[in-house]
Amino acid sequence: MPAERIDAVVSLAHRRGFAFPSGEIYGGDPLAWDYGPLGVELKEHLRRQWWRTVVQCRDDVVGLDSSVIQSREVFAASGLLDTYAQTRARCQVCDLGQPVGQLVEAYAFRQGRLPAALDELSCPRCGTRGSLTDPVRVSGLLGAWPDRVDAAGGPQLLRPEAAPGTFVNFANVMISARKKPPFGIAQMGRSFRNMIDTSEFLLRTREFDRMELEYFVEPGSDDRWLEYWIEQRWDWYVDLGLSPANLRRNERPLTGLPPYAKQIVEIEYRFAGAGGEFAVLEGITNRADHDLTLHAKHSGADLSFFDQERGERWVPYAIEPAANLPATVFAFLLEAYDEDEAPNTKGGVDKRTVLRLDPRLAPVKVAVLPLSRNAELSPKARHLSAALRRRWVVEFDDSQAIGRRYRRQDEIGTPYCVTVDFDTLVDGAVTVRDRDTMAQQRISLDQVEHYLLERLPVG
Amino acid sequence: MPAERIDAVVSLAHRRGFAFPSGEIYGGDPLAWDYGPLGVELKEHLRRQWWRTVVQCRDDVVGLDSSVIQSREVFAASGLLDTYAQTRARCQVCDLGQPVGQLVEAYAFRQGRLPAALDELSCPRCGTRGSLTDPVRVSGLLGAWPDRVDAAGGPQLLRPEAAPGTFVNFANVMISARKKPPFGIAQMGRSFRNMIDTSEFLLRTREFDRMELEYFVEPGSDDRWLEYWIEQRWDWYVDLGLSPANLRRNERPLTGLPPYAKQIVEIEYRFAGAGGEFAVLEGITNRADHDLTLHAKHSGADLSFFDQERGERWVPYAIEPAANLPATVFAFLLEAYDEDEAPNTKGGVDKRTVLRLDPRLAPVKVAVLPLSRNAELSPKARHLSAALRRRWVVEFDDSQAIGRRYRRQDEIGTPYCVTVDFDTLVDGAVTVRDRDTMAQQRISLDQVEHYLLERLPVG
Repeated sequence: MPAERIDAVVSLAHRRGFAFPSGEIYGGDPLAWDYGPLGVELKEHLRRQWWRTVVQCRDDVVGLDSSVIQSREVFAASGLLDTYAQTRARCQVCDLGQPVGQLVEAYAFRQGRLPAALDELSCPRCGTRGSLTDPVRVSGLLGAWPDRVDAAGGPQLLRPEAAPGTFVNFANVMISARKKPPFGIAQMGRSFRNMIDTSEFLLRTREFDRMELEYFVEPGSDDRWLEYWIEQRWDWYVDLGLSPANLRRNERPLTGLPPYAKQIVEIEYRFAGAGGEFAVLEGITNRADHDLTLHAKHSGADLSFFDQERGERWVPYAIEPAANLPATVFAFLLEAYDEDEAPNTKGGVDKRTVLRLDPRLAPVKVAVLPLSRNAELSPKARHLSAALRRRWVVEFDDSQAIGRRYRRQDEIGTPYCVTVDFDTLVDGAVTVRDRDTMAQQRISLDQVEHYLLERLPVG
Repeated sequence: MPAERIDAVVSLAHRRGFAFPSGEIYGGDPLAWDYGPLGVELKEHLRRQWWRTVVQCRDDVVGLDSSVIQSREVFAASGLLDTYAQTRARCQVCDLGQPVGQLVEAYAFRQGRLPAALDELSCPRCGTRGSLTDPVRVSGLLGAWPDRVDAAGGPQLLRPEAAPGTFVNFANVMISARKKPPFGIAQMGRSFRNMIDTSEFLLRTREFDRMELEYFVEPGSDDRWLEYWIEQRWDWYVDLGLSPANLRRNERPLTGLPPYAKQIVEIEYRFAGAGGEFAVLEGITNRADHDLTLHAKHSGADLSFFDQERGERWVPYAIEPAANLPATVFAFLLEAYDEDEAPNTKGGVDKRTVLRLDPRLAPVKVAVLPLSRNAELSPKARHLSAALRRRWVVEFDDSQAIGRRYRRQDEIGTPYCVTVDFDTLVDGAVTVRDRDTMAQQRISLDQVEHYLLERLPVG
């Protein structure tokens, strides 16, 4: 997937309203993007699909929504204060912050040897050599303090993942929902990390929605459940449209895993280049009994399960499939982006950009297009648009030549365009155009909703 | 609405899994609640209903999701650094923080005069007199700083409302979505405030989801649009089940409004007591051109609209209906809570607790209950449950006597219970029980889905 494709997607995203640089009128934030009208729908559809698959359609998973801000001890117990920490140096010329490991790796790759001193390294942005500060250990978490108050006063932190909130609620949820292992607790929500440098569009942003499941199983069955969830999650991405050729399963080496993990397998997507530049969509981690054991120890609460059949108490192992929603949005945009040709009115063909999003994910499901602004066509089109809007997100557009309007709908991935034309006044029918094939079909007005119901998801 | 009713609702919420005190195993957080399996569904349904009404079903409103963390200048431009600030004193005995205004009001109410000095005041929690520190002006915002770094280094803040993110994206959204006033930009998402003291269940929590609309209109039409939105929003609460008798329209006095507001009208709910203790569900504010004008001035961006018909440029006024989602969840729980009587197996009646939630809001839509754990009944019930789960959140329960299972479903507001009994094996039918009337109807197995489709919303 060439890098120009990424540029084209980022440009389309900005122009059509999928995502804008956050605070753009103030110069933008290098680590944040705001979702525009189309991006918020796409993100919401992915979110709902996840919830539907992981929670609603299963008997063994329930939901939770825990607080973003929690006390330091909640994060300390899991060892999270260290997990996301980095050793970083900063360029004194251009102010770029970078993990020291990355700088050393880049040097070793170019020179074939390790640097003898930090002085030998160059800043990857401005190229200045010897401009780096001494390395500093930096927390990967953000603290939430009252504004303009000494930092020492703030014992609370913004969660880097939802997991701690799930583990501390383990007993409350298991009892109130009357579940027993194997069962899972799912969360979707915003998480925050102390990132540096700049994000690459929706990758590596400071704040991001995560979709996390902690699936609690009997020790000994954990390896099998890990495989089960890797397969389930892989299939979810493929079912919604990612090509298996662009996905990769990456098993993290067992040496060097963080302390909470017995095993980590990542599902990665090919974001750029032929063969290169994969990035993680989701990690599936076997956290064993790490978190429940530590939270039990620190809080004094009983976080075990009494197994009546075996007549003994054990601490469940947690299998955690955890997806990054912004990265997922980016992957689906990239996958859906396509260019082909469409016939123009002069009998030739024009280049066409089309987002081939699965209808379940398309931000706008139907566009209603009166052929021209006309006292007879417009009310008919408005009436149809209002009727369809009860079921789907509908765009009504009467602004330009029909060809340009089709181009716009193709570019934002709208599966169906319904054109109300002068024949409609005679035959009571409209033209329904398919985004992918560009085939047009004449459908009676009173059959349009039924026609679309057979082809589009509701909601 | 008596206070015992609130206690009953909070107790039910905890016991059944609507909401738990955040970090309960570590002693709990006085300002935060975590939503359990049922609470997260109820909250999500309210969220979706809002989005459906305010965005999807309208041609003139589009969505947005802007970042939670933004630079200080974004909040400073709107004057938000001061808006939520409070002057507070702290009890040196029990450490309770309180707005000084509230302490003085309580004193004046009791004594019939203002205190001559702060020394005269008593702490409302521990009762100690003269224990208060000197008053301090405290920011109402929370800052997001890298953990363990000097606070002076942190220029970024957690949003207290989504509005600033909407205003700074005004031009990007208007252009990419090709809208012109009157049109609106809607956001749902987490906001944070530097609250003190303790929350009252879901009221006055530190973090909370807001559902906000900024509706941009031509100056001069703003008073009319304010009324329009008050009516729209009032009707939304009533349509979903709040009794108008428990709602109140509160017009904030024009003197003493915050600088950004030309007018504020609040929709309040009666949370306790006969006549007393209303709390705000939603404020509908006429923000005039305050924000767009200030952001244009501070950023240098053009945040006006060129009116082609009038041939001139003007800055739209913003009408802002902004709802507090946790308060709304609390209100719907309180409104739905009811106690009546149900027949028991001994021919008498038992007290019954029932949540009369609108089916659109009920966390579980259908319960499937095999009369007993039986090799023939269970598979039939499991099969039905799996089929219904494709459309709705379904609870399968085969754990206790049928009466107790009905009680549980009533208590969590499940509209329909489907019982699979021994007759099912003969006649291929099941008993469908209505939550509110407790009436039971015999429905053929192959008609159950159709029967429920006519009575329940999908999704």
